[in-house]
Amino acid sequence: MAMERTAKPLLRALAGEAVWPPPIWLMRQAGRYLPEYRALRAKAADFIALCTAPDLAAEVTLQPIRRYRFDAAILFSDILMVPWALGQALEYREGEGPVLPPLRDEASLLALRPERLPTAIAPILETVKRVRSGLTKEGFADCALIGFAGAPFTVACYMVEGGGSRDFASTRTMAYAQPELFDRLIRLLTEATVSYLGAQINAGAEVVMLFDTWAGLLSPAQFHRHVIDPAQTIVDALRQSHPEVPIIGFPRLAGLLIGDYTTATCVDGIGLDTSMDLAHAAKWIPAGVALQGNLDPLALVAGGAALRQETGSVLAALKGRPSVFNLGHGIVPQTPPEHVAALVEQVRAA
Amino acid sequence: MAMERTAKPLLRALAGEAVWPPPIWLMRQAGRYLPEYRALRAKAADFIALCTAPDLAAEVTLQPIRRYRFDAAILFSDILMVPWALGQALEYREGEGPVLPPLRDEASLLALRPERLPTAIAPILETVKRVRSGLTKEGFADCALIGFAGAPFTVACYMVEGGGSRDFASTRTMAYAQPELFDRLIRLLTEATVSYLGAQINAGAEVVMLFDTWAGLLSPAQFHRHVIDPAQTIVDALRQSHPEVPIIGFPRLAGLLIGDYTTATCVDGIGLDTSMDLAHAAKWIPAGVALQGNLDPLALVAGGAALRQETGSVLAALKGRPSVFNLGHGIVPQTPPEHVAALVEQVRAA
Repeated sequence: MAMERTAKPLLRALAGEAVWPPPIWLMRQAGRYLPEYRALRAKAADFIALCTAPDLAAEVTLQPIRRYRFDAAILFSDILMVPWALGQALEYREGEGPVLPPLRDEASLLALRPERLPTAIAPILETVKRVRSGLTKEGFADCALIGFAGAPFTVACYMVEGGGSRDFASTRTMAYAQPELFDRLIRLLTEATVSYLGAQINAGAEVVMLFDTWAGLLSPAQFHRHVIDPAQTIVDALRQSHPEVPIIGFPRLAGLLIGDYTTATCVDGIGLDTSMDLAHAAKWIPAGVALQGNLDPLALVAGGAALRQETGSVLAALKGRPSVFNLGHGIVPQTPPEHVAALVEQVRAA
Repeated sequence: MAMERTAKPLLRALAGEAVWPPPIWLMRQAGRYLPEYRALRAKAADFIALCTAPDLAAEVTLQPIRRYRFDAAILFSDILMVPWALGQALEYREGEGPVLPPLRDEASLLALRPERLPTAIAPILETVKRVRSGLTKEGFADCALIGFAGAPFTVACYMVEGGGSRDFASTRTMAYAQPELFDRLIRLLTEATVSYLGAQINAGAEVVMLFDTWAGLLSPAQFHRHVIDPAQTIVDALRQSHPEVPIIGFPRLAGLLIGDYTTATCVDGIGLDTSMDLAHAAKWIPAGVALQGNLDPLALVAGGAALRQETGSVLAALKGRPSVFNLGHGIVPQTPPEHVAALVEQVRAA
């Protein structure tokens, strides 16, 4: 698809142009590593209150743009806002992460209320609107706004397990032992995700991204069934309703299945995790698809020579292809903000 | 290399023969899912006492062979016996896993005592001897004995972190921020691993396996430096000292780097984790190398149709290549022993 040279760099890259230096943004670029985030975080009663207060969430989203002038702002929210909107009780406990009543039977599945979704997500859509107008108002004309959702499998992991886990063993066992029930949950989440992302686009998101953080836990057959198939359904539906909006898929730790995912889903950009060898990955991914990744977030913690070297490797591997510079996983809280500044400088000087 | 038709099936497969049905053994086949293990476990004061009591450890190693007649027995031990033998304090706390004083500076590195290794590992070597003679005595003529060690990076993870972790962030940050210190630790562990595996072979191990459980956490550059290079050094040294003994490498979650690992290290067999698509992996791995894997341990928990189906997929993908049927990760404690029996039956009927 032809894009004006004046379009935002992220949109040009996602349209298949080898923009250089590549546009840059970082997963979890808004968050605890920033002092201005920590100051603002204290104003909300809890994490859900923060995600559903449009003034605060919009402000948090804009903070890293002001500091680093990234090429994209990503809606400040959480992948568990979908189960929350569907009526599953959700709580964030200090130092423990999310806690939900584990969904393990048909009664719990039937207790979910998809009809609540449009009302429940209204404050999040309001945040999207405010960020979009804030970007214009503050003069960030090159900065694109990314909306996002957790992919069905990853969201199901938290819903079934009842919180975070090292290996989500209960969820993955349920997928084998109660396949019909698990498939119904995945289908319900797939439909909710289509509505949720479509609504974000209507509210002003210019790109959407699908985070499948735990995709790599699955066997290849389960990966096709619970990761690739739902992503394909979501992409197909959004192409119908919003053909102009590019979609980034991020099946974390997909390993050898990265090519299958990219080809089957027809995403415009593919998020590559830290472990991915970019030269190998590039061979499996159609040439027009933008590669997004994949600096190790811990190189960003370390800074100095190690950061420069790892950044140099990522840049060298991205060059000549449509690409988006990013981390391979989210920024960690102990990251020194000045290391992020050094990274942005190096990428922009590439 | 030509092998007698009468050699043990595992040794034939590792010599490059497409033995069918494939030999089968399972990672953590001796362990808590077996009632006879739990009964015996109660006799040792703690986990280290169990690993260093040759009578008990040999008995535990033989238990699953008696029950399922697997094609291999694997020494019952722990990857942290090397740091323990080097003098780093090690304790196993109930429900918490291993706890060690974190190794974060040069003084801690210098406090390690490689000269203690030969004496410290003596009881483990005695276990190897007893298992080997036990296999003969009990008539398991086709069962090969596998010795093993944790690979340097994975062992370093526990040593630096001071125990288990979801992401071993301190270890990986140290690798970037104090590269010389981390390299010295990896070198020390590489040398210790060569001695340890060589001693296991001298005591009767017929195959050795190198477990790099956390290899997939690394960026490609760090993977080459801390996973591939040390494995290559270990394999080269063992080929010199014990050219007749096959070596299995298991760089878990290596993803796209599985081919680089296999080719560079020249292992005889390559362990493939649950996430690996075997058809894709086979294209990256030299034809003579045995593929070992990769049933999802949670399909083994679920049993029934899901287990039969996933097992069928693995068997179909292994057929026609030298291969070893195994799980993609260790058996989990909640596995019903009768599911293991059903699995063995299905594989043997292939």
